Amino acid sequence: MTIDSAGSQVAGESPLRLRLLISYDGTDYCGWQRQTHEKRPSLQETLERALSRVFNQPIAASASGRTDAGVHALGQVCHFDVHTPVSRFAKWNLCYSLQSQLPSTVVVRKAWLAPADFHATVSAVRKTYRYWVYHRAKPSAVLARFSHWHRYPLDLNFLNQCAQQFVGEHDFKSFQSVGTPIRNTVRTIHYAGWSQRPNGLIEFKITGNGFLKQMVRNIVGTQLMVLKKGQPPGQISEILAARDRQAAGAPAPAQGLFLVKVYYPRAIDIQCREL
Amino acid sequence: MTIDSAGSQVAGESPLRLRLLISYDGTDYCGWQRQTHEKRPSLQETLERALSRVFNQPIAASASGRTDAGVHALGQVCHFDVHTPVSRFAKWNLCYSLQSQLPSTVVVRKAWLAPADFHATVSAVRKTYRYWVYHRAKPSAVLARFSHWHRYPLDLNFLNQCAQQFVGEHDFKSFQSVGTPIRNTVRTIHYAGWSQRPNGLIEFKITGNGFLKQMVRNIVGTQLMVLKKGQPPGQISEILAARDRQAAGAPAPAQGLFLVKVYYPRAIDIQCREL
Repeated sequence: MTIDSAGSQVAGESPLRLRLLISYDGTDYCGWQRQTHEKRPSLQETLERALSRVFNQPIAASASGRTDAGVHALGQVCHFDVHTPVSRFAKWNLCYSLQSQLPSTVVVRKAWLAPADFHATVSAVRKTYRYWVYHRAKPSAVLARFSHWHRYPLDLNFLNQCAQQFVGEHDFKSFQSVGTPIRNTVRTIHYAGWSQRPNGLIEFKITGNGFLKQMVRNIVGTQLMVLKKGQPPGQISEILAARDRQAAGAPAPAQGLFLVKVYYPRAIDIQCREL
Repeated sequence: MTIDSAGSQVAGESPLRLRLLISYDGTDYCGWQRQTHEKRPSLQETLERALSRVFNQPIAASASGRTDAGVHALGQVCHFDVHTPVSRFAKWNLCYSLQSQLPSTVVVRKAWLAPADFHATVSAVRKTYRYWVYHRAKPSAVLARFSHWHRYPLDLNFLNQCAQQFVGEHDFKSFQSVGTPIRNTVRTIHYAGWSQRPNGLIEFKITGNGFLKQMVRNIVGTQLMVLKKGQPPGQISEILAARDRQAAGAPAPAQGLFLVKVYYPRAIDIQCREL
């Protein structure tokens, strides 16, 4: 379906599909998804409330994936449907309209009119995450929300030898936290590596075609465990081969994790029209 | 008084004076000072609770100055007295002991045994503050707690011409917010200037011998007001000369402000012994 046909669809009362690029500081949220028995708001309900106000209709939004409580996003993607004629969007500055209804910890970076078959979760082909480790003798009050403080020695060369072993197609069953178990735990990692950043930060970056529950946090936590235990980097391959959650380390804390970017096929991207 | 005499004072049951260098993310606090009718904790009570636990005695702490709700500190200084013999400090890692009793948003960077006449407020001779303006078309979710988003044009050269006029000895009555009025509103500014920082941040830095209530936020807000109104930089001198709060602009929001450093006379610093 093309944008033009989407436009003409509206005349026939069909909903329009919209795509958003959003960023958030996840500190004060219970994660993307609504949770019962949880005082903190979810990002989903926060965004849906803003969307419903701006479009003056009930709106349900779906994200590329559910980030955990405390996890941040620089480039989360979501979609939703509206029953508002496309001709009205041209008059709005949609990002600013939404921003006026959102707390400062959730930002709408971009908005597109998307093809009707675009789905933030299903259409995603790749994702990049980063994890920040704060590596100084004393913690940082200002970086506490955005990093995991690690005061023990770190060897970037060693960590990169660990990271290399995640690259390629592997069964990541050892790195899937309990929760909703996924039957197919095979994923492909395109890139995984550590680098020194300014101000005492060590950054782990990972790109793959999909990630299991808490997989990135488990990957970071396991590398730090292997380093701390004085095991060889090759231990990572053995942990992967074990296909057993008990073989891997504890997940690294949520606050160091950022969803950086979600990738979609070019065939979809070129059909999206920025609003 | 020297440290040795402080040590011997303890034998005679006199209290010991300690000095702390602390940093904090002020977002979740009602400011340094305890407030009645305020749900959020104060930094003072948070620190005093940790000190009282570690030293196992009631402890009252005084800071170099009271930061407002939402204002951060990279280098706040405070002092307190303990009735614990100095011989015990040598065995402790005081920073880590205190850290274990503090939330991650408050960090004890250094601790010293100070001369008995050291006073965090009264002994201070100079302070440096910084203010972060986030200057991009869209806000930043991750920098929202630490900067003021300004989407309109900014002219650094113009702002620096404004800033220059604060340097020197001036009556800052126009820049004192209502509250506890101070009779002597004359202060000396040693440095004031704007600079471009990475990631869309514009930084204002100011050093002076003292600051009135909300003075830095009023100085930042007034410069942005003069810029926005298209007035000449010389307007700043007129606002100073007016000695009238109504002449200046509204205070810039609290979350962009950081207390960077507090300076004490070298004669005091050399008498402090790091713990």
